[in-house]
Amino acid sequence: MLKLNFHPSGRHFLQIPGPSPVPDRILRAMSLPTIDHRGPEFGALGLELLSKVKKIFKTENPVIIYPASGTGAWEAALANTMSPGDRVLMFETGHFATLWQKMALRLDIQPEFLSLPGYEGWRQGVQADMIEARLKEDTGHELKAVCVVHNETSTGVTSDIAAVRKAIDAAGHPALLIVDTISGLASADFRHDEWGVDVTVSGSQKGLMLPPGISFNALSPKAIEASKQSTLPKSFWAWDEILEANKNGYWPYTPSTNLLYGLNEALDMLLDEGLDNVLARHQRWGAGVRAAVAAWGLEIQCQDSAVYSPVLTGVVMPEGVDSDAVRKIIYERFDLSLGMGLGKAKGKIFRIGHLGDCNDLTLIATLGGCEAGMKLAGVKLKGSGVLAALDYFAANPLNAGAAER
Amino acid sequence: MLKLNFHPSGRHFLQIPGPSPVPDRILRAMSLPTIDHRGPEFGALGLELLSKVKKIFKTENPVIIYPASGTGAWEAALANTMSPGDRVLMFETGHFATLWQKMALRLDIQPEFLSLPGYEGWRQGVQADMIEARLKEDTGHELKAVCVVHNETSTGVTSDIAAVRKAIDAAGHPALLIVDTISGLASADFRHDEWGVDVTVSGSQKGLMLPPGISFNALSPKAIEASKQSTLPKSFWAWDEILEANKNGYWPYTPSTNLLYGLNEALDMLLDEGLDNVLARHQRWGAGVRAAVAAWGLEIQCQDSAVYSPVLTGVVMPEGVDSDAVRKIIYERFDLSLGMGLGKAKGKIFRIGHLGDCNDLTLIATLGGCEAGMKLAGVKLKGSGVLAALDYFAANPLNAGAAER
Amino acid sequence: MLKLNFHPSGRHFLQIPGPSPVPDRILRAMSLPTIDHRGPEFGALGLELLSKVKKIFKTENPVIIYPASGTGAWEAALANTMSPGDRVLMFETGHFATLWQKMALRLDIQPEFLSLPGYEGWRQGVQADMIEARLKEDTGHELKAVCVVHNETSTGVTSDIAAVRKAIDAAGHPALLIVDTISGLASADFRHDEWGVDVTVSGSQKGLMLPPGISFNALSPKAIEASKQSTLPKSFWAWDEILEANKNGYWPYTPSTNLLYGLNEALDMLLDEGLDNVLARHQRWGAGVRAAVAAWGLEIQCQDSAVYSPVLTGVVMPEGVDSDAVRKIIYERFDLSLGMGLGKAKGKIFRIGHLGDCNDLTLIATLGGCEAGMKLAGVKLKGSGVLAALDYFAANPLNAGAAER
Amino acid sequence: MLKLNFHPSGRHFLQIPGPSPVPDRILRAMSLPTIDHRGPEFGALGLELLSKVKKIFKTENPVIIYPASGTGAWEAALANTMSPGDRVLMFETGHFATLWQKMALRLDIQPEFLSLPGYEGWRQGVQADMIEARLKEDTGHELKAVCVVHNETSTGVTSDIAAVRKAIDAAGHPALLIVDTISGLASADFRHDEWGVDVTVSGSQKGLMLPPGISFNALSPKAIEASKQSTLPKSFWAWDEILEANKNGYWPYTPSTNLLYGLNEALDMLLDEGLDNVLARHQRWGAGVRAAVAAWGLEIQCQDSAVYSPVLTGVVMPEGVDSDAVRKIIYERFDLSLGMGLGKAKGKIFRIGHLGDCNDLTLIATLGGCEAGMKLAGVKLKGSGVLAALDYFAANPLNAGAAER
Repeated sequence: MLKLNFHPSGRHFLQIPGPSPVPDRILRAMSLPTIDHRGPEFGALGLELLSKVKKIFKTENPVIIYPASGTGAWEAALANTMSPGDRVLMFETGHFATLWQKMALRLDIQPEFLSLPGYEGWRQGVQADMIEARLKEDTGHELKAVCVVHNETSTGVTSDIAAVRKAIDAAGHPALLIVDTISGLASADFRHDEWGVDVTVSGSQKGLMLPPGISFNALSPKAIEASKQSTLPKSFWAWDEILEANKNGYWPYTPSTNLLYGLNEALDMLLDEGLDNVLARHQRWGAGVRAAVAAWGLEIQCQDSAVYSPVLTGVVMPEGVDSDAVRKIIYERFDLSLGMGLGKAKGKIFRIGHLGDCNDLTLIATLGGCEAGMKLAGVKLKGSGVLAALDYFAANPLNAGAAER
Repeated sequence: MLKLNFHPSGRHFLQIPGPSPVPDRILRAMSLPTIDHRGPEFGALGLELLSKVKKIFKTENPVIIYPASGTGAWEAALANTMSPGDRVLMFETGHFATLWQKMALRLDIQPEFLSLPGYEGWRQGVQADMIEARLKEDTGHELKAVCVVHNETSTGVTSDIAAVRKAIDAAGHPALLIVDTISGLASADFRHDEWGVDVTVSGSQKGLMLPPGISFNALSPKAIEASKQSTLPKSFWAWDEILEANKNGYWPYTPSTNLLYGLNEALDMLLDEGLDNVLARHQRWGAGVRAAVAAWGLEIQCQDSAVYSPVLTGVVMPEGVDSDAVRKIIYERFDLSLGMGLGKAKGKIFRIGHLGDCNDLTLIATLGGCEAGMKLAGVKLKGSGVLAALDYFAANPLNAGAAER
Repeated sequence: MLKLNFHPSGRHFLQIPGPSPVPDRILRAMSLPTIDHRGPEFGALGLELLSKVKKIFKTENPVIIYPASGTGAWEAALANTMSPGDRVLMFETGHFATLWQKMALRLDIQPEFLSLPGYEGWRQGVQADMIEARLKEDTGHELKAVCVVHNETSTGVTSDIAAVRKAIDAAGHPALLIVDTISGLASADFRHDEWGVDVTVSGSQKGLMLPPGISFNALSPKAIEASKQSTLPKSFWAWDEILEANKNGYWPYTPSTNLLYGLNEALDMLLDEGLDNVLARHQRWGAGVRAAVAAWGLEIQCQDSAVYSPVLTGVVMPEGVDSDAVRKIIYERFDLSLGMGLGKAKGKIFRIGHLGDCNDLTLIATLGGCEAGMKLAGVKLKGSGVLAALDYFAANPLNAGAAER
Repeated sequence: MLKLNFHPSGRHFLQIPGPSPVPDRILRAMSLPTIDHRGPEFGALGLELLSKVKKIFKTENPVIIYPASGTGAWEAALANTMSPGDRVLMFETGHFATLWQKMALRLDIQPEFLSLPGYEGWRQGVQADMIEARLKEDTGHELKAVCVVHNETSTGVTSDIAAVRKAIDAAGHPALLIVDTISGLASADFRHDEWGVDVTVSGSQKGLMLPPGISFNALSPKAIEASKQSTLPKSFWAWDEILEANKNGYWPYTPSTNLLYGLNEALDMLLDEGLDNVLARHQRWGAGVRAAVAAWGLEIQCQDSAVYSPVLTGVVMPEGVDSDAVRKIIYERFDLSLGMGLGKAKGKIFRIGHLGDCNDLTLIATLGGCEAGMKLAGVKLKGSGVLAALDYFAANPLNAGAAER
């Protein structure tokens, strides 16, 4: 019989860019007895959730909650709006943008994949001007949607979605704007309505601090309208029946009851703290971690300081160092999980998650593990990142509002 | 802020045919900290789970675990094996068979829906002879699959899947056999390999005693072969990438980690008790509950005693009694949730779940609530069902093996 | 390695008169991380608890909370008020009154044990007139305290404490009134201040619905005064240092932090429901259970209907039946724990707990298990107790206030 | 209603020298449903616990488990072995030795309190030669016991108990040896039998990683013999009835069931890891933390390197710095709880707990919080303690056995 408790002493440090550490409050809420998803209490819970979750997306429009992990919500966004053979414009920001593009191919959609040359796009955000130029060329409006990743989890870049909106508008193009903010929601600033996003895709296991297993589509009226024309076959992902059942707080099929308990708790935690405070907290952590990387004399994967992610930081290893070997040492010696380099970044970087249920000392511990592990792996460091981050955190207290709690 | 604890005194009796009551052991396992789904511990957990779960399906072939609720696994079974326009043979055993047929239509599949006249099919099991006859007519092998529900949750009928297998063989037809045992698995006898099932669909929130949120496709080599020809667009549900990643205990996308913790615990509980003991336990409960219904002088929804479900029993209300009104009284006065009549059975029956983490006294309490509630609702009862069930349970102890625990 | 999960299917029915079933809310509250018992959050928790707990005792005076189980609080009540050789008047209501008297002997106190002849006192409440008569004789005021058990857990008798108060007053005697309501608090009506009790002793694992481990002394100004003269050696139990530290919400030594989390949750649950509703709920359950015993044609241990306990009912077995043999059958066949006959009642009765986190169907299940078990043990029953209780519960809904919840 | 969740983001760092952080496994075990403490499962649990706990004390003799916090076990050790007016020899190692001496006075025992001059004893261990000298003078054997603290939680000194044993033997004195290892057990090497300890006192909330609420007396045959002559009044603490009931795994009164679940889990965790590995882990942490203090250029409270505690380290603040002011800053800015200076050390030191469910990075985080907080408080530091500890941990991996886990 497998023991699910792997670590004999102390808590594991889970500092990957998702799943993020799940707070005890949420784990306990999830462990309440399952109820009848057709009964009156469930309806009350459903209505409450569907209302509160809108505040996180900053939308007045419906948010669909799927009993499926985030990749499913990617598929749902496409399956509900597209028809076989439809063309969409995507932008290569990294591994997840690439996976989404591959998914589109599997769904009989024809993605056009805008990229900067070589590896460059993996170190920058979405280039809105390239999108604008391409849309202007598309005078026949063959492109049905622009699909971009807001927070690229593989690189640590948070693209400017407002700029993409402006690009589409400037081109006078009717394409839908579909945005993946699976790892950005509730950690990086995101505004579904204000930025004119038509479908926002998100998941539970990042800024929402839940285990993986549920995911989201936030909609716009235009997206709902488009869904009525869409002919891709769909049933589980279909918005129409869900929107209908959601009116009374229910789902057309069995929802993931216990994860919804956790979602309810997560939403209360975030809204009690205040979403702005939550975002400020992440920005501050990002700055502290980047101060550490600078002190080490290492490069950050994201090369444009305007789009540094507040959620995670990609740390570039010097030439000749295998980042996975470094991660392995850190894991084995310090019980600390870091994100690996994915796709084109494989072996080149490791990723530090600084999101969700953390605090300053969690990150100091994390940076300590990184620093000692890199030294053990023979990485030459210019100075101490831990001390730089400590100094940063000490010099930059959270603002009064957040500090009051 | 919504309170998730609805009941001020005592535990709610959740006696619907799923979600079934989740044991504390499983709720606690689910509340362990989320780990990195790309890390070494997860791989070990994945391999363990994928191996143990096969024993529950009685198969040596792969079992796919989806981070999505059961309806998703229905879609997956079709999306992986069918191509647009394909014809499938389905059989109307009740509400869930009907929903599955509607799903097929949404997925561009053409279902042929075999039915007994009027309401009759809702009180019987699958008629294998009708299937055999239809397949024999289909000399061009247009029908790509036979899709049947093993345990029809809306009626309390457990169809004879071995007979369906024989029917297909007798017709010499190459159609795939796709079976939904969402509510049957781990409560009613099911044998994926022995019965020659090609795809078995199941879910977590019934005999596996988990909350809803994960679901299953057990495959056959023939099904895997068929998936290579299938052209329905699919990505999240696609078997190929999952089978590949599962070799090392991983998933191509984020799995539902904490529900997998629960699954691991559930599998240990079931295998420790012994699957045969588990099935005998359910058979005995079914017999006790039916003794109660007989004592009340009421009809059981299932009219064929050969296919009584060991999972749930549909209780038919006398003419003129609205079963939902009865359920409401029972719920409000006795904090007991029963299953409603669905589809054609709406208002006519209520359903008593007797599955999963129950024991004799749980069912005595349940029958007590039903009996008192029916009386309060003015239903005329011939005798006491509670006493009949008590007598049955007293006279029929669990066999020695199970009693030893 | 011992498995702590003993029961493979369903929840155990713990219907002893304490420990009572612990609600999930309390178990979860208890599992929050332990905090520094000298830190600011603990102080806030302590003040909150010490204030809320007074409402349950119906007192404006201090309530001491010990990190020790109930027997400790018995000792504390004596050790803080008595000096070596002091005489106290006790009354034999059953096993626990007897144990308390034995404890007094061990503490160098001289108890005088008023008793009805033979077994009679075990079937009646405290006889206030006997106390009054004895106190009137004690013109020298040698008796320093009258010690009585409010709810005698071994028999199911809830004595009239107000009558004892009147008896003391009528005798014009200065003795302290010390009352054990370990199993009565928060289930049976109890009024520390109104009844002029000087020290009330209670515990956590009964009406407060907590696991065992913490216990209480509610004080009066007269008791506090007496403690200053008391010379029995004491340190852990000493009120003075605790009262001092409690002013700021702390304890002089380490308190039982996680059980205090549970206490906080329990107090919220009870006060949210309303203490009067809680008491009415227990009265109604007691009546339902007694209806069952009457239908069985069996005797209730308590022979005075004015002092039936709302917490538990002692069921007398017919001559020649060993109640422990009956309990064993019920336990083994129905996973139901009942209280054994204690002391003079050994082998003669079993005790049904109907307290705390129960509901109607829990008790129906319990009575069902008793009924079937007694039949299996060969006990002749006149009629069905389960049905009688069902009828009682159906005919007597909880009052509107409680029903609203 | 008080919120028990005080910290909005991340886990609190509880690095006081007890209560130590409670592992999730233990918190979950404690949240299992309470069972009948008179039923067969409890007996099995009791026997298992009483057997396993002996291994932690390294004894073949009985260990008493009290449902009361550690201060109670102090009282129990004295109340069971002493008679009113008895003289005992105690040694002033710090605050807890002083409190124990005060308790003796309250219990009508006459303690003689050996001390080094002034504050000196608070920075050294027990001086066995002073004890030997005093015992030799006591030719009439008036001193009934020698009472010493093994791990003095207020200073971070772990005294040499074997030396005290030798001193008693060298004096040929019959006094009992009573040792408090409340904060030493399962973190610092302790050998009840080998060192000839007669009564060992311990508690749950330190090396055993449980919440507070249960405590221990490990006995010797000589102690049991002494208890038969002891005339101090006692009931709750009396060994005789407990030893009798323990034979079958039960207690004479209600034990603290859910904390015993936790104890069972804790014992499994410690014995699975191997007690020697556990002790080595603590030694290594102590060395790492002391490396940090040395790097800061600060003094350690313990001035004798032979008796540095592996459980906690007292850090002496420079003249003029109030250690409580420093602790307050660290607490408020870094959500880190440290131990305050107690008694004679008030305001002079803070104490870092490095025990129980920690790991290297927990301590790095802790030292980071200390370092940044001291700087914010204006404490001049020579160098970086965090880096020194990181270097120490990196250079000194846990030995192979422990690393395998």
